Formats: sequence, C-alpha cells, structure tokens
Amino acid sequence: MSKDPAPSRRGFLTGALAAGGAIAGSRVAAQAPDPAITELQPWMQYLGDGVDARPYGTPSQHEAHVVRRNVEWLTADPVSSVNFTPIHELDGIITPNGLCFERHHAGIADVDPAAHRLMINGLVDKPLVFTMQDLMRFPRENRVYFLECAANSGMEWAGAQLNGCQYTHGMIHNVVYTGVPLRLLLEEAGVKTNGKWIMPEGADASAMTRSIPIEKAMDDCLVAFKMNGEALRPEQGYPVRLVVPGWEGNMWIKWLRRIEVGDQPWHHREETSKYTDLLDNGIARRFTWEMDAKSVITNPSPQAPILHSKGPTVLTGIAWSGRGTIPRVDVTLDGGRNWHQARMSGPSFDKSMHRFYFEFDWDGKPLLLQSRAHDSTGYVQPTKDELRQIRGENSIYHNNGIQTWHVNERGEAENVEVS
Amino acid sequence: MSKDPAPSRRGFLTGALAAGGAIAGSRVAAQAPDPAITELQPWMQYLGDGVDARPYGTPSQHEAHVVRRNVEWLTADPVSSVNFTPIHELDGIITPNGLCFERHHAGIADVDPAAHRLMINGLVDKPLVFTMQDLMRFPRENRVYFLECAANSGMEWAGAQLNGCQYTHGMIHNVVYTGVPLRLLLEEAGVKTNGKWIMPEGADASAMTRSIPIEKAMDDCLVAFKMNGEALRPEQGYPVRLVVPGWEGNMWIKWLRRIEVGDQPWHHREETSKYTDLLDNGIARRFTWEMDAKSVITNPSPQAPILHSKGPTVLTGIAWSGRGTIPRVDVTLDGGRNWHQARMSGPSFDKSMHRFYFEFDWDGKPLLLQSRAHDSTGYVQPTKDELRQIRGENSIYHNNGIQTWHVNERGEAENVEVS
Repeated sequence: MSKDPAPSRRGFLTGALAAGGAIAGSRVAAQAPDPAITELQPWMQYLGDGVDARPYGTPSQHEAHVVRRNVEWLTADPVSSVNFTPIHELDGIITPNGLCFERHHAGIADVDPAAHRLMINGLVDKPLVFTMQDLMRFPRENRVYFLECAANSGMEWAGAQLNGCQYTHGMIHNVVYTGVPLRLLLEEAGVKTNGKWIMPEGADASAMTRSIPIEKAMDDCLVAFKMNGEALRPEQGYPVRLVVPGWEGNMWIKWLRRIEVGDQPWHHREETSKYTDLLDNGIARRFTWEMDAKSVITNPSPQAPILHSKGPTVLTGIAWSGRGTIPRVDVTLDGGRNWHQARMSGPSFDKSMHRFYFEFDWDGKPLLLQSRAHDSTGYVQPTKDELRQIRGENSIYHNNGIQTWHVNERGEAENVEVS
Repeated sequence: MSKDPAPSRRGFLTGALAAGGAIAGSRVAAQAPDPAITELQPWMQYLGDGVDARPYGTPSQHEAHVVRRNVEWLTADPVSSVNFTPIHELDGIITPNGLCFERHHAGIADVDPAAHRLMINGLVDKPLVFTMQDLMRFPRENRVYFLECAANSGMEWAGAQLNGCQYTHGMIHNVVYTGVPLRLLLEEAGVKTNGKWIMPEGADASAMTRSIPIEKAMDDCLVAFKMNGEALRPEQGYPVRLVVPGWEGNMWIKWLRRIEVGDQPWHHREETSKYTDLLDNGIARRFTWEMDAKSVITNPSPQAPILHSKGPTVLTGIAWSGRGTIPRVDVTLDGGRNWHQARMSGPSFDKSMHRFYFEFDWDGKPLLLQSRAHDSTGYVQPTKDELRQIRGENSIYHNNGIQTWHVNERGEAENVEVS
C-alpha cells in the first residue's frame, strides 16, 4: 500500500468534516483535472466476463493480498501449524469462509461425506451411528459464534513481538453455524446417570480428542455442518464439526466422528501437556476453557497504516467474550491518559465478535492506540502487565491483554508495549 | 444425489423420534457391520494438506455441484444475463459471497480501485469526487439486507415452469454490508432545496442508471464497499456499490461512479421499457420499487428430494419482505387444506432474509408443499392466482405468489401449480 499521492484530495476531507461538511467542495473543484475522472477507463468501454465465467465466485484480482498467512518458523511443519485471518482487511463481524484461520494437527482431512459416520458410544443407553443424512433429519439451529485459538496473542506474553494484528490476534474467526444441538443427539442415545463428560474425537490422522463436561454439551454445543450458509470448509471440519460456544478453539473438534460419554475427564495430551497454563509457582492451570473478553484495533495497525496526513480518521476494531456480549469498548489515542467510548456497530450476539468504531480528527502527531473491552458480565479487559502479575510469564495460552499500537507522523503503526 | 441405501439406518430415526427418542439404539446396533465404521478411511491414516496450501480457501471437492447456474436459452449472451443462487444447498440466512447470483448488462466490470472515483454532481452546493480512500474516512455502518432481482420468479407468471427453486427463486442473496450512509455523502455535497431525486450510475460499459427519490437516498441507502466482511466481489460491484434496502435489485447500482441530484426522475431505459409491469388494461405500473413479502420452501424441492422413505423429516425455506421483518411463515403439506406455523430460526433483521423450519413425520405418501409469509406490516403473501387477478398475465416482474412443490412417494419433488 502507498500513501495518497494527492495533497489537494487529502485536504478536502480535513476541511470538510472539521467545518461540518459545508466547505468541502471548493477544494475538490480547485484541484487539477483528475485523469481518473476525465478519461474513460477500460472497464467503461469493453464488455466484461459473463454469468457463466465463475460458477463459484472469487475475489477481485486487486484483493490478492487479502489472504491467510502462516509464519514458517513457528512450527516444524505446515501440517501441524496455524495460519492467521487477515483481520486488518475485514470489516463488520462476519469472517468470510475463505479467510477463516486454520490450525491442524495432521493436515486438512479430505473427508468423503458419503463414507463419514458419527458414533455416540460409552455411558449411553443405546450406542448410535449417524450418517450425514441422518443428522439432516434432526431440528437445526442457526447461531453466530467466534472461534478463537487459546494460543491467539500467545507470543505477546514475552512483550511486543509480531508486527501486525493478523499475527498477534488473527487466530480468530466469526461465522454463522447451522447445526443440530448436541443435546438432541445425546438424548437420542440416552446418557446414563453417571455420564458426566463427553470426549469428541476427530476423523483426521491426529484423531484429536478433548474432554468436555456434560453440562456444556447439553447447554449450547452444536453439531454443525454449515458455516455462513454453505457446507463447512475442509479446513474447518467438513462435513461436520463440534461447536463449543465461547470456549477455546481446540475443543471444537473438526471432522467429528465419535462422541464418547464417560464419568470423568480423559486427561488426554491436548488438556495436559498442551492447553494448560504453567504459573510461576510451577502449578499448571487446567481446564481453562472459557475465552476471556478481549479486543484489538484492526485499523490503523502495522499492516494498515493511516494513508492521509491529518484530519478525519476512522479507527476500527473487534471485540469478543466467551461469557456473553460486548456492550462497550473504550479506546485511547494517548496510551491510556484519556479514554473514549467507541461506537458499537452491527448486530450483537452472545459469544460473537463485535465491531467498534471511533471517528476522530487526527492532528498528524504520533498516537498510542489501545482498546479495552467490557463484557456483559461486567468483566473488563486487563493490561498485559496485570495478566503477568497473576499468571507469570510462562504461559502460552489465554493472553487477552490490551494491545498497543504506536502510530508515527507518517501514519505507520508498530507493535509496542507501554508500562 | 442418491437415496439412502441402508433400510435399517432409515428405520432407526423413524422409530426413535416417533417414540420420543428412547428406542432408537437397538435398530442401529442390530444392523450389519458398516464398513464406514469398521474400516479405516484414508483421511484417518495419512497427513492432509498444510496451512500453506490455500491462502484463500475453497469448498470441498465433494461440494463441486454447489454452484451458481445460468440458463443458456434465457438471454442471447451471458454478458447480459443472470445466474441463480443454489438456495436449495444453503441454510441459515447468509449467502456466501461465491454463490450470490449475478445479473449483468455488459459483463463483470474489472475495476481497479486505485483508478476508481465516485462523483456527486447536479443540484448540490459543491460537486465532489471521492477516491476509495476518501470514502474510508466517513463513519461506516454494518447491516444485513436481501437483494432480489425484480424478475425473480418471473417465468412463473405463465404457470409452473422451471423445475428447481434455484431457478424459480434463486435471483436473491442476503449478505452483511459495510458502507457509508449515502446521506452523509449527500450532506457533504449539500443537496439544494429543489434536489428531489438521485440518479446513481455504474462504471461498467452499460453505464446502468436508475432514478431514486431523495427520501429513500437520505433514509437507509448505503454506499457499500464490503460484503460478508471482505471486499465486494467483482460481480457485485467491486469496489463500491449502492445498497437500496428492500427495493428491486436493479436499483442497487454496481461499480458506482456517479450520483447526480435532480429535480425529477430521468425516465431512463431501466425504468420505462424495463422494470415496469404491463397490466391487462394496457397501462404499465411504474416505480414499483419495493419487493413484496415472499417465501419458498428450499428443501424438499425438485433439486433436493427427500432421501428417506418415511419418518422424521425436516422441511426448510426462506422468506423476506422489502417492508420489514418476517415474524411468521405458514406451511402446508396438503396444498392448503391444513396450514401449520413454521419455526423461525436465526436472527431477524429488517429487510433481510429469514429462515424457517417445519419438522414433521412423513408417512411416505405424496405431499403438496407450500409456504406463506407474513411480514411485519401485516401483509400476507398471495397465491399466484390472486396476483394474476390484479396484475394480469403480461408481467415479468414482482411475482411473489405462493410456490407449490408436489412430492411423490419416492421423495422426488416437482414444480406444479394448484388452483
């Protein structure tokens, strides 16, 4: 991206919005003829592709930079790694399916839905096996949820590291799921009185498993087969995944093939050696499932600088909580000396991403940007230092500390930490 | 698609749901060993693609049939034609960007956003020209709207024609838009007292124009640059389109390059020879902008037969109104003798698509399926015959009549008309 090359264009908005919109026009009218206006562009003169060109559509060639990105040095192999949602290029609260971040443990399972089965076994009256067609015969629900990897922002425990919100906060996506309440399938099998936990298992080569208390399973979990209206994407568990609203992404078992009901947790790898939080005293926090309230400013940010020299500027970002909605986000332009209440925009759903904006008149001087989410339980997003005081510095997961961007006079942003 | 090959599997749900979920298991347990369960599938044994394989994701190879489809004989050339959203393959209320139907008049303009400008001229205090970066400096909003072509279901004026809801009702999509309220841009330019209409113009080779009253422009229109979180798709007007909530799709000018303010409508081609409704008395209805309340059952339907022989069955469909929300949809299984209130699911927004379900126990006998939408103004979707009595049979546009599917004993559905 480059800076706006036209100073006269930059000027018009400054004058216009500052003065209430009345004096804008003159600066536009005074500018030199703009070839973009006075000359016919090729797309105005020639026919484009027809309706048979792309049965399944793709983004504009001019948006080729808007992609998920991985960090090669992060893991030994891309089949057991992560890539990141380009949250600095998105707006609103829906993540398009092609841009939802990925995290695999044995690569993307390419499952044939006709050969896929979902089994429920263990402490149930009747073990059951469902085809995909069987699942389509149960009542469905449609709900919007964020999915955040517990390791999102994990690098930031050691101070400001990766330069760009795609990398610091991009292990999140937010989509509309269509699925069957897990409760209905468990009731169909009949959970025995001593059935207190479930263990969902994936059909990929890693056979991912996690332990989930029966209360959560019976509450709001979905066995989902659609995201944003269409079939799940392969990298998101096609043809069927578990949705565990508000809880860490690792538990949302993809390519779901089996749900075992038991009387205690299984203590498998992903809830012992991984996905636990080692504290300073040597004790590891376990079963830290719920994602705490969190927010980040996506624009401006290191990958999305301010492209004008001063004047009316839109700041925007996202916020979410695993415990409810986000009724309020505060933002600061000066590292926390003054806080302003941001404007929330778009629908607000329980355990969904929320969008906030803050419009301000930039004086062209450096900024120290932060956002602070409040969730519907009254919880307020802490600073990174506040988190470290409680959790120490050994953690990988569950870093929901306030993020800071420094913006210089040229509009360029950088990941920094303030104490 | 094929019928479920396993009679014992089909049986379990019948027994299970009919008896309240308690006796299901035995039928599953009694069935012969299922190779899909007892044998390891390849995706359980081998590593899949890594996180670097698809920076922008695509659907599963097993979903290759879920695409927009055009009808070759409908127009002379695909650059001035339409394709249809596969609504029978979707669920919930969001249409994924790759599947939003297309309608072009000169093909898909491939616009370079850096060279694109939006001009506001005519009866304004100060003519203005905006770059895309300029637009990003105005306050944005996020809203969910359906877009329906006025010609959706147009073939059905002549009785049951095309066999499949993709073709009869697929000129619709529903997405979340991010954009600047048009009101803010018009206020920036300063509309003169005699400015009563606007004429948005597209930057494609057809230079599409329509007349829109200033009241609508100032009310809820958006100048949108994002759909479902990411940049508009080229076929939907990238980099910027007009959103005219609840009004016919032709007015939602794509590749928006100019908005002229005038004191009367322009009476251009698309609001005189096209997009008007010729009545029996030779008079044409004009300026019939608002889309009336409408609904259709998407499953079962001709392209989506019932795949089991009897028992618990999920019927689903979509409903919408250009005048508000859809608080209620009725469905009938017997051509209107008995009506049942459907279950609405998912968020309800003004001028957005709504999703309804009706779960029933199919006896395996023929069905005559219809749905009937009620909107928040109290309007009830009419039958096709009721529409014909008022509008005659010369119309192409604005057919919101009740759709009927006949389902035979094999679960196959057909487009029929009942009188």
